[in-house]
Amino acid sequence: MQASKVSRRLKEATAPEVNEYIYRPRLQGFAEGFDLLGNINKAHIVMLAEQGLIRDEHAAVLARGVLKMEEAGPGEVTLDPSREDAYFNYEAHLIGQIGTDIGGRLHTGRSRNDILATLDRLRCREVLMDLIDALLEVRQTAVNNAEVFADVVMPGYTHLQPAQPITYGYYLSAVEQALARDCKRLTQTLESMNQSPLGAAAFAGTPFNIDRGRTAELLGFDGYLDNALDAVGSRDFMLESLSHLSLLAVFWSRVAQDYFVWSTHEFSLIDFPDSVAATSSIMPQKKNPTVLEYLKGRSGHIVGLLMGASISIKGSNFSHTGDGNREGTRGFWEAAEESLRCLKLLDLVLRTATPNIELAVRRAGEDFSTATGLADLIVQEADLSFREAHHVVGGVVRKAMDAGLLAHQIDTVMIDACALEQLGYPLNLPARKVRDCLDPTANVQARISAGGPSMASLKPSLLRANTRIATERHANQARRDRLAAAQERLQAATRAQAGL
Amino acid sequence: MQASKVSRRLKEATAPEVNEYIYRPRLQGFAEGFDLLGNINKAHIVMLAEQGLIRDEHAAVLARGVLKMEEAGPGEVTLDPSREDAYFNYEAHLIGQIGTDIGGRLHTGRSRNDILATLDRLRCREVLMDLIDALLEVRQTAVNNAEVFADVVMPGYTHLQPAQPITYGYYLSAVEQALARDCKRLTQTLESMNQSPLGAAAFAGTPFNIDRGRTAELLGFDGYLDNALDAVGSRDFMLESLSHLSLLAVFWSRVAQDYFVWSTHEFSLIDFPDSVAATSSIMPQKKNPTVLEYLKGRSGHIVGLLMGASISIKGSNFSHTGDGNREGTRGFWEAAEESLRCLKLLDLVLRTATPNIELAVRRAGEDFSTATGLADLIVQEADLSFREAHHVVGGVVRKAMDAGLLAHQIDTVMIDACALEQLGYPLNLPARKVRDCLDPTANVQARISAGGPSMASLKPSLLRANTRIATERHANQARRDRLAAAQERLQAATRAQAGL
Amino acid sequence: MQASKVSRRLKEATAPEVNEYIYRPRLQGFAEGFDLLGNINKAHIVMLAEQGLIRDEHAAVLARGVLKMEEAGPGEVTLDPSREDAYFNYEAHLIGQIGTDIGGRLHTGRSRNDILATLDRLRCREVLMDLIDALLEVRQTAVNNAEVFADVVMPGYTHLQPAQPITYGYYLSAVEQALARDCKRLTQTLESMNQSPLGAAAFAGTPFNIDRGRTAELLGFDGYLDNALDAVGSRDFMLESLSHLSLLAVFWSRVAQDYFVWSTHEFSLIDFPDSVAATSSIMPQKKNPTVLEYLKGRSGHIVGLLMGASISIKGSNFSHTGDGNREGTRGFWEAAEESLRCLKLLDLVLRTATPNIELAVRRAGEDFSTATGLADLIVQEADLSFREAHHVVGGVVRKAMDAGLLAHQIDTVMIDACALEQLGYPLNLPARKVRDCLDPTANVQARISAGGPSMASLKPSLLRANTRIATERHANQARRDRLAAAQERLQAATRAQAGL
Amino acid sequence: MQASKVSRRLKEATAPEVNEYIYRPRLQGFAEGFDLLGNINKAHIVMLAEQGLIRDEHAAVLARGVLKMEEAGPGEVTLDPSREDAYFNYEAHLIGQIGTDIGGRLHTGRSRNDILATLDRLRCREVLMDLIDALLEVRQTAVNNAEVFADVVMPGYTHLQPAQPITYGYYLSAVEQALARDCKRLTQTLESMNQSPLGAAAFAGTPFNIDRGRTAELLGFDGYLDNALDAVGSRDFMLESLSHLSLLAVFWSRVAQDYFVWSTHEFSLIDFPDSVAATSSIMPQKKNPTVLEYLKGRSGHIVGLLMGASISIKGSNFSHTGDGNREGTRGFWEAAEESLRCLKLLDLVLRTATPNIELAVRRAGEDFSTATGLADLIVQEADLSFREAHHVVGGVVRKAMDAGLLAHQIDTVMIDACALEQLGYPLNLPARKVRDCLDPTANVQARISAGGPSMASLKPSLLRANTRIATERHANQARRDRLAAAQERLQAATRAQAGL
Repeated sequence: MQASKVSRRLKEATAPEVNEYIYRPRLQGFAEGFDLLGNINKAHIVMLAEQGLIRDEHAAVLARGVLKMEEAGPGEVTLDPSREDAYFNYEAHLIGQIGTDIGGRLHTGRSRNDILATLDRLRCREVLMDLIDALLEVRQTAVNNAEVFADVVMPGYTHLQPAQPITYGYYLSAVEQALARDCKRLTQTLESMNQSPLGAAAFAGTPFNIDRGRTAELLGFDGYLDNALDAVGSRDFMLESLSHLSLLAVFWSRVAQDYFVWSTHEFSLIDFPDSVAATSSIMPQKKNPTVLEYLKGRSGHIVGLLMGASISIKGSNFSHTGDGNREGTRGFWEAAEESLRCLKLLDLVLRTATPNIELAVRRAGEDFSTATGLADLIVQEADLSFREAHHVVGGVVRKAMDAGLLAHQIDTVMIDACALEQLGYPLNLPARKVRDCLDPTANVQARISAGGPSMASLKPSLLRANTRIATERHANQARRDRLAAAQERLQAATRAQAGL
Repeated sequence: MQASKVSRRLKEATAPEVNEYIYRPRLQGFAEGFDLLGNINKAHIVMLAEQGLIRDEHAAVLARGVLKMEEAGPGEVTLDPSREDAYFNYEAHLIGQIGTDIGGRLHTGRSRNDILATLDRLRCREVLMDLIDALLEVRQTAVNNAEVFADVVMPGYTHLQPAQPITYGYYLSAVEQALARDCKRLTQTLESMNQSPLGAAAFAGTPFNIDRGRTAELLGFDGYLDNALDAVGSRDFMLESLSHLSLLAVFWSRVAQDYFVWSTHEFSLIDFPDSVAATSSIMPQKKNPTVLEYLKGRSGHIVGLLMGASISIKGSNFSHTGDGNREGTRGFWEAAEESLRCLKLLDLVLRTATPNIELAVRRAGEDFSTATGLADLIVQEADLSFREAHHVVGGVVRKAMDAGLLAHQIDTVMIDACALEQLGYPLNLPARKVRDCLDPTANVQARISAGGPSMASLKPSLLRANTRIATERHANQARRDRLAAAQERLQAATRAQAGL
Repeated sequence: MQASKVSRRLKEATAPEVNEYIYRPRLQGFAEGFDLLGNINKAHIVMLAEQGLIRDEHAAVLARGVLKMEEAGPGEVTLDPSREDAYFNYEAHLIGQIGTDIGGRLHTGRSRNDILATLDRLRCREVLMDLIDALLEVRQTAVNNAEVFADVVMPGYTHLQPAQPITYGYYLSAVEQALARDCKRLTQTLESMNQSPLGAAAFAGTPFNIDRGRTAELLGFDGYLDNALDAVGSRDFMLESLSHLSLLAVFWSRVAQDYFVWSTHEFSLIDFPDSVAATSSIMPQKKNPTVLEYLKGRSGHIVGLLMGASISIKGSNFSHTGDGNREGTRGFWEAAEESLRCLKLLDLVLRTATPNIELAVRRAGEDFSTATGLADLIVQEADLSFREAHHVVGGVVRKAMDAGLLAHQIDTVMIDACALEQLGYPLNLPARKVRDCLDPTANVQARISAGGPSMASLKPSLLRANTRIATERHANQARRDRLAAAQERLQAATRAQAGL
Repeated sequence: MQASKVSRRLKEATAPEVNEYIYRPRLQGFAEGFDLLGNINKAHIVMLAEQGLIRDEHAAVLARGVLKMEEAGPGEVTLDPSREDAYFNYEAHLIGQIGTDIGGRLHTGRSRNDILATLDRLRCREVLMDLIDALLEVRQTAVNNAEVFADVVMPGYTHLQPAQPITYGYYLSAVEQALARDCKRLTQTLESMNQSPLGAAAFAGTPFNIDRGRTAELLGFDGYLDNALDAVGSRDFMLESLSHLSLLAVFWSRVAQDYFVWSTHEFSLIDFPDSVAATSSIMPQKKNPTVLEYLKGRSGHIVGLLMGASISIKGSNFSHTGDGNREGTRGFWEAAEESLRCLKLLDLVLRTATPNIELAVRRAGEDFSTATGLADLIVQEADLSFREAHHVVGGVVRKAMDAGLLAHQIDTVMIDACALEQLGYPLNLPARKVRDCLDPTANVQARISAGGPSMASLKPSLLRANTRIATERHANQARRDRLAAAQERLQAATRAQAGL
């Protein structure tokens, strides 16, 4: 029998394919999870001793052993894939240091299953906090530039057709408001997932008189999960987090798509510095939007990871399984890493993009996107119903286009001609108001309804956004502080148990 | 020019393929959304009049027209696909009734875009409340049967291998706890999505002095969305809801898979009444688990709908577009309908499944799943470390299996033989305690840790579950009451405006 | 016991939820599949009689019964959901007509499982032929317009940045070549899937001496599937077909995206007639690309259907199951229907789009996409290495842009200035060749390499495309003819058996 | 300006985020693709010289430079992420060795776009051949063990309920037949994708008189892709390959699911050696099916990769883009690697699984799965219609179950009792034939229809399978030989050009 096999039940060494393809890759994250595994062990030792489940002298040796491993770091542990995973390698090393009699007591009243479930929550909670911070960063950049470009008028689009003039700042404000919901989703998950599975043991509890509340507290959890089968059999907090990342990725791809189109030669509404562009090996004039394409492409990858995880878990039983809890969760870690990278790139995009101010406003004046304002004016000035005003302006636009005129060349004569045709009488609008209406800047500034693009509407929105971001930043920092305090308490309790 | 075209800008009739493949299918839901569209119109009329944006006499005619349409019902409206969608057909009918001069004023200060966004939220909020109620039903069934079968001992599985004995009631309790999180997710979305987009107009606000708070209030919203571009360009509340349904579907499939395996001839842990089974055309003995396979299969479909919606939206710009807001949201409606059906079927499964009590406990006593309890006993009685106790029991199990013995046939002699071999000394465990340990019922009842399967742990869990469900039922009902009250206020205000 | 239950093994009536949610929807396609089911029955009767497995007089009654049902049509069959599905309803009706003693003999040596598998193949093969014809239609439209617009010069894009001038005809030719691969994929599946599962019975063969080759022949199959378990347990031909539709949908979405961008106000390279556009309820100038957004959105839906089917089947065992064979295949039928619709709309797009000839060529002359041609010229005329030529032109472009010049304003003076700076000597290019190079039309026509955009390269491509399409059309028609002939033989054999 | 930027058009250094997150990861595969890139360069040099597009002395220097780099290996190239990718790093190194004047001529008449497209095809073709070989290996294992276990009777399942007895060899034969279709799909793609994109240049051809057929031939392609835009803008051969892998993964998961269930304690039909199992940290009796769960889980991941790729490409334009051609294709490489690993593990599973012969046959005799055979017997012996025989046997099974009898305890007395009840007369079947029918081994051997499980049907199937596998193995080897010969010709031509 192979020395490294934990179980005396199995007689043969693991097949080499299994070691190489399954177990070895599992150990790649050993260093990364080492400290968290140590924390779980410390909390468990402290609780076991407090509950009288192990003797104080044993607890002292265990505590010192774990603290020594912590000091030495993960590099000291010789990893053997045939031990199946990180936990067994950790335990084997500890037993190698302090002997089986005491080292073997560490695993009293628990299982690899609840340890793995706890590890996933400890790591995920870090990752969620990092993602929230990264999102806050992007949102702040959006708001900052929304302030800078609050009055830069540009065409606004629906169906990618010029619809009504807006400002670039208004667009950025919309981006922030959408991202705030992504942030909220991740925050809600962070708040609901911070529950300890430790003490669920394999999935069916334990006869030892353990104190689940105590280990939960020492590890900075807000409480513990009740039903032990659910506690180790469910990883929905990870699939939920991955869903949120997928939603986020779908959104950033839409934003990237906007910039992708706006930075074409034909739109030319947005410029990027050369530092954010790529070249061509053959076409000397090219300046390619590599970052935007990357954001668009990786978005798809993250949605794909959600799908992969969903399929894998979907095919499992409701219990602890490899396809449910291992294969089904790896997509989250990859998606989180990719998302952090993409949020930095999105930040780069929002930070470095600059509007072509002059062109943008000119285009908005020519492309007929001011026409709705004209219809609104007719309603206000000529007491025509909106639908009729809409028809009159539709006719005016049609004629202007047929005559090769641009929007700002529309005048009262043309309007009255159409009105005569459609209504049988002219509208006699004040020429100055018509001109104002067709001026994109005035057109934008007239739209003062709540949530509109005028300065009057946008400024308070941005003020609220700044407050919102500051509050959330503070809340995330407070979370980190609470966890740091718990960590200190854990360390102190462990050292006390160790007699240090 | 075609009579039905709203715009004077376009000169030709719509191509027949467009009418048949795109517009006609849009009108299928006309009847279903008719009342909600009416509500939006009423709220808008009331607000326009209150703000002085239309004259009282016009408002009265409009209000009467809308109320009359409401009374007549959607069947009275002749639908014309070339009018593109439900809103234009509604407006055309109204204008047919009360004339363009007044009827055309209804659309002042708004757009089809914010109407569509509002409709989606009004409908989605109903659907979410229905889903929550359906989930509460299933949860109650799970808890009820968990109480009934709280002491029915059966093998518990990890990796589908017998792991430790549990009870069927304990399993059902786990199911409820998992579903409670699905409920929570849907509830959080319900609470955050109840914001009005109305007044965002096309995506860029309006120069009319509208009161967005007022229409929001009349429609039972908790407030209104700020940035108008975001308000009409985002449907993330639907993709978020769909993500939750996908998570739910993944979970119900896992439960269905458990029952699928447990009701095989070989497991025979669970029986279903014949009313929940299907036959074979050729094999006379067959009783097929149609409902379980349906639940498993539809689960995949719902994940696929999430996928389809994500792709569609992902490819759109951040603005109002057909692929983002129409194509990207239809998956949600389908998924919601399917989920409601599947929840009823899941309820049927949980309600009608009965455990094979005798077989279940016998199997749990024979399949070695009590072995962990024996290791725990050795720790408690012989002061051996858990790892060493685990090794001894591993050896015992190995020998028993090789000798063709069942778990409950293990005795102290066998244990001591293994201990001698591995440790060099016998353990001299009390024979009665060993027997107890290997008795699945005693084994289960010993596991008294919080969240464990013993009666002592399970009973309080179920009490809490009952309370939880009652509270949530009440909260959902309170929501419905609030919306009914808002609806009454809207009706009253409209009638007042109509002079009725 | 319920009259309609086929099996005497089950005692209770089916639960109403099961009837309503599962069985009733299955019967929706009864009419559609009725004739195919009849064909299977006819082939089976003929074979049973030929093999002496039923007596001739029984075969005659059965044959007459089936032919009579065929004549009466599906509307004559009273559908009862509690009979589970189409087959049992068909059989019950037949037995109602001709009695159990003879009617009950129809099911000798077969099962619902192999019937369902056969039905799926018969239907799928029709659908694949329809899809291939629809694709051929689109391809012909692409080639026809490629010929019409073979010399319409426009900017070509990579990364959506102007790259090199091409022609619109060249683009359409690329579309046809890509679609030809989609066609090939569907054709390969059509050719490999035309194998009969009939005679596999439930999944394990039969002791009756059936002749599988004979039923295969009568149903127009090219042969029969060997292993019976595989024959009824696998539907990979449908998942394979769905994969092909997903690939196709991904492609048409890319094409739709091109037109979506090209038909923006800013690009204005392509115009659509008003019949292919939608209006706005508020913005009088709008002309929205509804069809393109539909194509983009439905593409996502089809990929989602592939996903849903894959998940469902993935979670099943390798055998006949509901989630594998029913739930896992419905996505294909929906995708096929959607794809047929979308191909018609794609055809509409390609047929009605018209390039803005003048603008397109002008833009191509101004946007620096001719620069690669200039680098190539330098290589040819000045014997400079391409990399150095590329650098020189990069510098020229940079300077021209900084000076606000357009591409066609570049001259030999500017080139020599850059060459001096970078190489230390002027290039002295012939001014006429430089001018030609910067003229987009000459630039395009110079690219005479195989597969390039010049008329010299494009014309033979289009010739080959026309030949290819004609050949494939002919092959598909030949397939239809073969099947019609088989159908006639089946009818004749059945009538002979029926003594008609 | 940064030294490493290829283009003189861009003025600034690349932003660090872009270098780190986008460009550096691209270089990870540099070593792997180095030789293929070298081959492309060699073929291009030989062709340029043969066409007189570069002078012989330049070609000699270039050829020697490339051969020298090949000899030195990829480790000699200092990689600089700011050069964007592998190709620019390769070119920069070459130019560093032989100077810009000559080194810069390498890129005449081509582009990075066609190089990348060619690289993808060269690599993909290797990977497809490896996958086909791995599949052939698994298929051979399945057939070998099908022969070994051809007569091992076991219950066969539909809906996971015992349906009819089969043999384990018959199941393995079904697995091989299904995998043969996966092999065929990959082979069809391999055969259609082996077309050269080289010479498409950026996407729009080149004015240089290149010979695309010649480079295609030198690189072992079967021809070249025509339209240059399609040649660089399409990677459907990779999405098609990925679709095939997804189908394959869905299938292997179903097989893994069968073994997962069959190796449970309750089914116990299949045993695995300890070398293919995992342990538990707490439950000493456990032997967990890690490999099967891995196969099930990774299957989901591969379907997810297909989705990710589809989404990414779906959002791109039909042209060369980063999201279409880079982001959209990486999933294939990962899926191919995972699939190779999983095929080795699937092979391990099929190779090491052993049926529990005695238990399997006993179970098949007790679980009523022989009932269909009894109905068939009644048809044959009593001239009853199948439907009536089915009803009689249904009643017999019902009674036997109610009486707690097993299938093989059914006798003629019971049958006649049911017949009397249902038909009014007894059937008087010969007792020996009834016994035979209820004996699972005789029951299986009676099913002699083509593709059935009897030895008479299975043996020829396995013979054909062996022939099929041998033929395909030979064909794949022949492909490798042809490519090796092309590689030798390329090397010889390059050395000749180099004057070596």
